[in-house]
Amino acid sequence: MRLAVPLTGVIPPLCTPLTRTGDVDTRSLAALAGRLLDAGVHGLFVLGSSGEAAYLTDAQRRTALETVVEAAAGRVPVLAGIIDMTTARVCEHAASAVASGADALVATAPFYTRTHPAEIADHFRRIRTSTQLPLFAYDIPLAVHSKLTADIVLPLAADGTLAGLKDSSGDEGALRRLLTDVRRRGLDARFSVLTGSELTVDGALLAGAHGVVPGLGNVDPHGYVRLYAHARAGRWAEAAAEQDRLAALFALTDAGDPTLMGGSSAGLGGFKAALRLLGAIDCQATAAPQVPLDDEAVGRVRKLLEEAGLLP
Amino acid sequence: MRLAVPLTGVIPPLCTPLTRTGDVDTRSLAALAGRLLDAGVHGLFVLGSSGEAAYLTDAQRRTALETVVEAAAGRVPVLAGIIDMTTARVCEHAASAVASGADALVATAPFYTRTHPAEIADHFRRIRTSTQLPLFAYDIPLAVHSKLTADIVLPLAADGTLAGLKDSSGDEGALRRLLTDVRRRGLDARFSVLTGSELTVDGALLAGAHGVVPGLGNVDPHGYVRLYAHARAGRWAEAAAEQDRLAALFALTDAGDPTLMGGSSAGLGGFKAALRLLGAIDCQATAAPQVPLDDEAVGRVRKLLEEAGLLP
Amino acid sequence: MRLAVPLTGVIPPLCTPLTRTGDVDTRSLAALAGRLLDAGVHGLFVLGSSGEAAYLTDAQRRTALETVVEAAAGRVPVLAGIIDMTTARVCEHAASAVASGADALVATAPFYTRTHPAEIADHFRRIRTSTQLPLFAYDIPLAVHSKLTADIVLPLAADGTLAGLKDSSGDEGALRRLLTDVRRRGLDARFSVLTGSELTVDGALLAGAHGVVPGLGNVDPHGYVRLYAHARAGRWAEAAAEQDRLAALFALTDAGDPTLMGGSSAGLGGFKAALRLLGAIDCQATAAPQVPLDDEAVGRVRKLLEEAGLLP
Amino acid sequence: MRLAVPLTGVIPPLCTPLTRTGDVDTRSLAALAGRLLDAGVHGLFVLGSSGEAAYLTDAQRRTALETVVEAAAGRVPVLAGIIDMTTARVCEHAASAVASGADALVATAPFYTRTHPAEIADHFRRIRTSTQLPLFAYDIPLAVHSKLTADIVLPLAADGTLAGLKDSSGDEGALRRLLTDVRRRGLDARFSVLTGSELTVDGALLAGAHGVVPGLGNVDPHGYVRLYAHARAGRWAEAAAEQDRLAALFALTDAGDPTLMGGSSAGLGGFKAALRLLGAIDCQATAAPQVPLDDEAVGRVRKLLEEAGLLP
Repeated sequence: MRLAVPLTGVIPPLCTPLTRTGDVDTRSLAALAGRLLDAGVHGLFVLGSSGEAAYLTDAQRRTALETVVEAAAGRVPVLAGIIDMTTARVCEHAASAVASGADALVATAPFYTRTHPAEIADHFRRIRTSTQLPLFAYDIPLAVHSKLTADIVLPLAADGTLAGLKDSSGDEGALRRLLTDVRRRGLDARFSVLTGSELTVDGALLAGAHGVVPGLGNVDPHGYVRLYAHARAGRWAEAAAEQDRLAALFALTDAGDPTLMGGSSAGLGGFKAALRLLGAIDCQATAAPQVPLDDEAVGRVRKLLEEAGLLP
Repeated sequence: MRLAVPLTGVIPPLCTPLTRTGDVDTRSLAALAGRLLDAGVHGLFVLGSSGEAAYLTDAQRRTALETVVEAAAGRVPVLAGIIDMTTARVCEHAASAVASGADALVATAPFYTRTHPAEIADHFRRIRTSTQLPLFAYDIPLAVHSKLTADIVLPLAADGTLAGLKDSSGDEGALRRLLTDVRRRGLDARFSVLTGSELTVDGALLAGAHGVVPGLGNVDPHGYVRLYAHARAGRWAEAAAEQDRLAALFALTDAGDPTLMGGSSAGLGGFKAALRLLGAIDCQATAAPQVPLDDEAVGRVRKLLEEAGLLP
Repeated sequence: MRLAVPLTGVIPPLCTPLTRTGDVDTRSLAALAGRLLDAGVHGLFVLGSSGEAAYLTDAQRRTALETVVEAAAGRVPVLAGIIDMTTARVCEHAASAVASGADALVATAPFYTRTHPAEIADHFRRIRTSTQLPLFAYDIPLAVHSKLTADIVLPLAADGTLAGLKDSSGDEGALRRLLTDVRRRGLDARFSVLTGSELTVDGALLAGAHGVVPGLGNVDPHGYVRLYAHARAGRWAEAAAEQDRLAALFALTDAGDPTLMGGSSAGLGGFKAALRLLGAIDCQATAAPQVPLDDEAVGRVRKLLEEAGLLP
Repeated sequence: MRLAVPLTGVIPPLCTPLTRTGDVDTRSLAALAGRLLDAGVHGLFVLGSSGEAAYLTDAQRRTALETVVEAAAGRVPVLAGIIDMTTARVCEHAASAVASGADALVATAPFYTRTHPAEIADHFRRIRTSTQLPLFAYDIPLAVHSKLTADIVLPLAADGTLAGLKDSSGDEGALRRLLTDVRRRGLDARFSVLTGSELTVDGALLAGAHGVVPGLGNVDPHGYVRLYAHARAGRWAEAAAEQDRLAALFALTDAGDPTLMGGSSAGLGGFKAALRLLGAIDCQATAAPQVPLDDEAVGRVRKLLEEAGLLP
């Protein structure tokens, strides 16, 4: 389906449920997509960091994307992550995602290598040239160890290379300046700025962001849909209250013991444990070599779900 | 004077004007303090990073603080930075600041050394024990290379070690979680959370921050006072518009060429060039070994002041 | 072929020559392998960082590996990099490398994700379980942003998961402690510690390293073979003199202008420009989106080759 | 006393013994200096990172320096650290150190601020101008978060600003290139390159370093004096064996539990615990807010001293 221009709204980055043996659990994934659609989300982002894209083989990525495309059934656009180290490898993922029915693509800057702004810009231009689909840049310095600065992004927005940006940098100051620049250049009607920071969505929308890609939206899509609606209606106090509730719930991402596991294991494990407790997926397994949450951590997740009103 | 509990409002971190020969320009500093007071700020923070505390000798620090204490004349509280590497050195600055008439103290985590959360907490406890003045923690990872996490701050807030936090971490997500936790524990009536991030003040106030310590407030104090008033009155759209204007103005902090100078030179040089262009201080010199802005950069600062409506 | 245990000697990480259109130049690659073999190297490492593994598609990786396996023709062992983000993806590269005829595998810690020592250890154990080939750990924090500490490596050496370590961390202090521990535990007869730091090979061999994997060895294999022979014969002054000459030559990795290109572009571009000037490969192109060296930079490379006695 | 040009040999960075109440223990400090002199060291470095300079007040720094100057009694030169954030503050320490009788000064790059190579160079030039004493640059990125690159250091060596460099960067590759460049420019007869990396002294001396500033030399000065003598005599195998023994002993710097304390606490605590166990100082206290080693950690230190042959 054709993407709205600019893309707006709540577009959760779907978790990829796995079976106990590490396969993509397509039944649970379709159910998760359905659950999000029922909550009123405006798009679905598959194969992002929350989707464990870094852990999935190419075949698993394809399975996950095709499952969601089918589940979405054209009701909302499906964005596909095409995450890999550098351009040629990313372009292969792009071609695969097109074949699987994605509506738009989401790529990071090059990583593993020591890169440069000129190379990052060229990287996005080459990806865009290789495909017809709208392309979003994914700013995630925690993973790729470089920042997509306004100096990189604005020319790519102006020349149509990029249809938008998913900002998971956590740098809300830079986001504010980018939004100001985007509007000043008259690009806000065709370049979509989406925040990936679950904890500052009210502020980002107040600052003019077009939408949000919240990992926590897997767990509480209704919360983010309400927050977005409050913001669009100018009910900022209500938006902030909803954000506060979601900020408290976000503690499930560090329910795991940081001395025993990595940040990704804890964060993704928390999302999946919550989804299993909510009955949204069958199994909370994360991909190897992530450390699973222990029972105590899962107990903390349950308590947070109760406090957030998601479990009785 | 006794600090309001909790401390709220706009509390600019004063620049320290210097003469051409590198001395503290007390006339300009007093004038700057007066200009901020006339604009309606709620406190003055001397000897922070914006005040070039890292560049001033102990005697210069004393001169700067005493100048501002005298200029404030008890109309608003004066907070004094006591920035040094570790506890014993910081405690000496604390004693000096008390003698100079400060109303409250602002200290960072230890730096230069490789520290630990337990040591950071002990550091603040020892500083607090050494003085009667209210103590604020200054979270500035860009300078000290560690983050004041909620795990460190909340116990210090609960036991009365800290009267507040100046958050210059730029980590708005962590700030949101901290604010949520502060309220949940009933500490928000006595623990003041102030954002030092000039670009996201609307969002921080929406999230419940008590106030703002904006370096850019040296240049445009009226803007931040208006922004704060809008926020307190629930006029969020107006607050965001004011913040947008200030975000555009903030570009003066990178008017300097980053291939020729450090980030501190560019930022502080931008503030001081603006203040000189506005007639608020006599000389735009920054302390050695900072590289001064060249004429081209000063031209860019002038243009930004014009665009912001601060120069005709 | 069966690897010597422990693996010792000079094992250059081959560059992957490309054609002007970005394909693997198999003729040049075979010629490069032949050139290194003629110089007396003790092994060949394909698809490392110097081989632009991060830039090559899976098909290109296969082509490169098969070309070198064929060129080596069993005279020396061929080690294959299996670089990817996490375990399942790495295991697929491992299977492919086995099918292509590699004699041993070289894998990094997980990257892109935020990982943990326990996860890194599990990662290597799972890779080892998935294949029969000897497995080397590749410590390259500049690329993967975590360090393979002795606490991770020693148990994996002791239990036979790892046949060795390629240390490109640049942390010579940690290397010394690791070598000391390896010997104390009696593991040095079966666990091979190879330094990837071209500039400190004499010191590393003096400290007991088993061999070296020098990117610069593409350009001057004779130099590293001589250096290794001097060290093994206890001619340390001669080893140091050879290392000094190679250290001066290493400047070709920053012939490129760092304001115009990334560190990888400059380093790999320098190697390839030198190889082309030496007639060892046909074309100096690096993979997109790397910025090519300009003529001035290539001139600097030529001068360095002359100073090192490699060009008249 | 006049410094040898270039300065060579073993120049330990003295620990600063403290009393139980946190004062400088001048008796123990003088005894420690005497112990090092008796072991044949070639200079004494006071108020470096190992000397807890970051933790000492200005008065304590003065006391420590004067104590060592008196103990040295002109037998070897005394170098004094003048560690502070930026130029003006460092120049005040320089004047104080001159008054206390230092023979040379050791300064880091600016820290706390975000600096630039041009500013760092200007910083050293201004310090040198402010004093008559020879000036050494102290490269310690772990503390100051920038690296003294060859591009910064070589011009300062050439124009006489710097008499030498203490390299505690741990970047042995950069050190090798610097040494090569220093010799090529004919500066090695007047510019002294000293490694501060205790674990790679044999390799550094093989590469041409003039001497070593080993924190561990507080504990085992005889070991470093022997290592240096072996190296100067070309007995590289013996040098390496001595270095191996010292590398094993260095484990006392991480006897402390890293989950309970910072790296500085563990490292300095290990040195001081060893010195107390050896009877070299009276009390193992480190300055606040460092966490002291617990009994278990001290037991590990004792065991390492026994294994190194320093305790029966």
